[in-house]
Amino acid sequence: MPQEKTVCESRVEMAQVMLPVDANLAGNVHGGSIMKLIDTAAGIAALRHCRTNVVTASMDRLDFHGPVFVGELVILRASINYAGKTSMEVGVRVEAENLLTGEVRHTNSAYLTMVAMGKNRRPIKVPKIMPKTQDERRRFDEGKIRAQRRKEMRKKRSVAGKA
Amino acid sequence: MPQEKTVCESRVEMAQVMLPVDANLAGNVHGGSIMKLIDTAAGIAALRHCRTNVVTASMDRLDFHGPVFVGELVILRASINYAGKTSMEVGVRVEAENLLTGEVRHTNSAYLTMVAMGKNRRPIKVPKIMPKTQDERRRFDEGKIRAQRRKEMRKKRSVAGKA
Amino acid sequence: MPQEKTVCESRVEMAQVMLPVDANLAGNVHGGSIMKLIDTAAGIAALRHCRTNVVTASMDRLDFHGPVFVGELVILRASINYAGKTSMEVGVRVEAENLLTGEVRHTNSAYLTMVAMGKNRRPIKVPKIMPKTQDERRRFDEGKIRAQRRKEMRKKRSVAGKA
Amino acid sequence: MPQEKTVCESRVEMAQVMLPVDANLAGNVHGGSIMKLIDTAAGIAALRHCRTNVVTASMDRLDFHGPVFVGELVILRASINYAGKTSMEVGVRVEAENLLTGEVRHTNSAYLTMVAMGKNRRPIKVPKIMPKTQDERRRFDEGKIRAQRRKEMRKKRSVAGKA
Amino acid sequence: MPQEKTVCESRVEMAQVMLPVDANLAGNVHGGSIMKLIDTAAGIAALRHCRTNVVTASMDRLDFHGPVFVGELVILRASINYAGKTSMEVGVRVEAENLLTGEVRHTNSAYLTMVAMGKNRRPIKVPKIMPKTQDERRRFDEGKIRAQRRKEMRKKRSVAGKA
Amino acid sequence: MPQEKTVCESRVEMAQVMLPVDANLAGNVHGGSIMKLIDTAAGIAALRHCRTNVVTASMDRLDFHGPVFVGELVILRASINYAGKTSMEVGVRVEAENLLTGEVRHTNSAYLTMVAMGKNRRPIKVPKIMPKTQDERRRFDEGKIRAQRRKEMRKKRSVAGKA
Repeated sequence: MPQEKTVCESRVEMAQVMLPVDANLAGNVHGGSIMKLIDTAAGIAALRHCRTNVVTASMDRLDFHGPVFVGELVILRASINYAGKTSMEVGVRVEAENLLTGEVRHTNSAYLTMVAMGKNRRPIKVPKIMPKTQDERRRFDEGKIRAQRRKEMRKKRSVAGKA
Repeated sequence: MPQEKTVCESRVEMAQVMLPVDANLAGNVHGGSIMKLIDTAAGIAALRHCRTNVVTASMDRLDFHGPVFVGELVILRASINYAGKTSMEVGVRVEAENLLTGEVRHTNSAYLTMVAMGKNRRPIKVPKIMPKTQDERRRFDEGKIRAQRRKEMRKKRSVAGKA
Repeated sequence: MPQEKTVCESRVEMAQVMLPVDANLAGNVHGGSIMKLIDTAAGIAALRHCRTNVVTASMDRLDFHGPVFVGELVILRASINYAGKTSMEVGVRVEAENLLTGEVRHTNSAYLTMVAMGKNRRPIKVPKIMPKTQDERRRFDEGKIRAQRRKEMRKKRSVAGKA
Repeated sequence: MPQEKTVCESRVEMAQVMLPVDANLAGNVHGGSIMKLIDTAAGIAALRHCRTNVVTASMDRLDFHGPVFVGELVILRASINYAGKTSMEVGVRVEAENLLTGEVRHTNSAYLTMVAMGKNRRPIKVPKIMPKTQDERRRFDEGKIRAQRRKEMRKKRSVAGKA
Repeated sequence: MPQEKTVCESRVEMAQVMLPVDANLAGNVHGGSIMKLIDTAAGIAALRHCRTNVVTASMDRLDFHGPVFVGELVILRASINYAGKTSMEVGVRVEAENLLTGEVRHTNSAYLTMVAMGKNRRPIKVPKIMPKTQDERRRFDEGKIRAQRRKEMRKKRSVAGKA
Repeated sequence: MPQEKTVCESRVEMAQVMLPVDANLAGNVHGGSIMKLIDTAAGIAALRHCRTNVVTASMDRLDFHGPVFVGELVILRASINYAGKTSMEVGVRVEAENLLTGEVRHTNSAYLTMVAMGKNRRPIKVPKIMPKTQDERRRFDEGKIRAQRRKEMRKKRSVAGKA
């Protein structure tokens, strides 16, 4: 495994047309169908970064800015924001495109923490991430702060659990 | 639509065996498959509470306490914690059962905000929730606080977005 | 494997929303989609009773009391009625709920015989069932009679087949 | 709609390879997956006979003579045995073929009662069936007897239900 | 493996109802859904001919003579036209049946080249094909010519690729 | 509808992990699963170019340069090569990526002819395509020649069919 990798090396783009199976009878696509695609895109980016199996450790609060409808194209772009010792923060941007009008709406942005798993199902070290562009550096800095906060929250809960 | 409803009236229990389609090659079930089931369970509880179409507005931070494997049974229990004017907080508890050993593990707890939609795709009023047991009252109080916090966060972001 | 188990220990409840994929163009859910869910619920209850792989040996005559439609919630409750040496009779009750009106109809009751399979794909012994409530005792007695009848029918057919 | 039709006009043959999604972890195909295919084949034969939507009214007792495994080809042949006023008895023969060895086993025979539905979701008249070969005549006679028995059983239950 | 086989021994017939998942919002079934069924039918015929795993090497130009709609029955008939050393040409005829009117249209004819794979993922010899009827002999002769042409085209491309 | 569009405006990239459901028991992904993805990608590009429903008229000869395996990522890139009066030639490039090693192989290149359909299910005019880069111009010229050849072949067949 290399010591460092760029953001480009693991970035992924996916596109999927929403089907009746993804929606309620009013034609609104279920949040759960979008969540599943988000997790898939994040998993591919993470796998590309560390080239080993990965599992989802957590997903940050997720807001749906508006509805997605059957027949629309959902486009997902996932890239690594920040990489810690054995975990990575993946950012996923979701857009919905009305294929008949061409209108594109930003529907979600998600942050997932993925952990690299070795053969014995134990976390293993991942390559560092090298932000290159200004955008990548900003995402790196923000991702690092979020990673730190998540660590503290897990510690608090763990203490509360023992109390 | 009645003015008030109990928690019991909308509570739902689902169970589903995890298949190869839900997992990576190492047999770990994708977080996204669990997220989709969580959203489905929450949607049914919300629909039962307000008896009109519902959409997912947001899901709070979600932690995966441990892996789920192909062949295990995932059990989801969803119920309304708190109901506002047009939205409801649904709590979903997820357990995984190893069907061959009987071992059951708590894998997730999720809070989703679901909004009731009228025929013109606009939010409509939902019945109030009547907590009866001590547990239901605690969940109601905590859910109310979380709902308040989400409202404030949306306001902040909206202001930030305009700045 | 324990010598005896209660009905509660293996009872299972499932709920699933019916999708366009489950129905004909008129919106009627196919009997086959319901049958598959019945077999799934029965299999989980049987697996929980004997904690080993199970296969379906037979399903008794199945009547559909009325149609189920796309968008309705199908709720299945399966429990062990009677356990013989290597096989179990599982009873499954199916209801359909119109999620928008709350109306619930009883659509089917099914009896399946499931056989426990050991590692060499041969039937193995299952725990006895301990009926506790009056209802459980009635189901046990009726299940035992049906199991006896099935045995006789198999014998007759086998003799006829040899003739 | 014609007054009479031959058995040939509605006979159907289907073939489907069994996938991991159809089986438990030991590779045994679930009875429910086979049941669903049986209902599908019966539905096509019935639809071809009456050229209007059909629903499954009942399936007679179904025995699984032996296991089917992932990767095997399931072959279904469905044809109308007998047609009453608004309902038809469809016979379905199921075979499993090991594609690598060519071995074919008879795994099930099923009898389903399908009812023709008009536009207002009410039963409508179906064409008579004209058995031609000796085999078709035997199936017709046996199907007629089974149809008569089912009618009596429904009557008994209905009386019991009112008592 | 036998030295020779008839066309009958591997011929296969499949039938599948088209679902909303197979179509665009206007109800037209995607070409890709038909292509996938064509490949499945061809694969079963090839597997039956050589009784070993097979892979698709190529599909000849495929024309869609007209649309297929949701709710229609797609019927596929596949048989071996010609067998070379390690590969087979499979012909697949596709028809669409409007189940409510009985109208049947020929929608496609496809020729696929399937290669037999041994345990080490390398091509292995397949049985010769014995055409019996006049039709089978014509298909054999035409298939042989097409196989020869494909070989030449591969050679040309390979040379061009090296230039 | 605009008179002209660039290639960029309709280009699409899709990525999908291959699952057990896409493969035979040896782990080789079926050609049919790849064909279906190819048709989906081509359909999205065509829809983006003309912003109206599209149907697949034909797919040119398709060669599989090598196997794809379960667990690999299939990446598809589709863009309009040439646009005629009512039809477009879409080129699709398919690559398979071994997610654990990072190795990427070119597995297919496909040319599909898609036709734009108006509300009455009749072909309607599509925008012209404006090739900008040298690569786009080469693809345009080659696509135009292929479109011409297809037209001639259809004419020949049509004449032969009448003879």
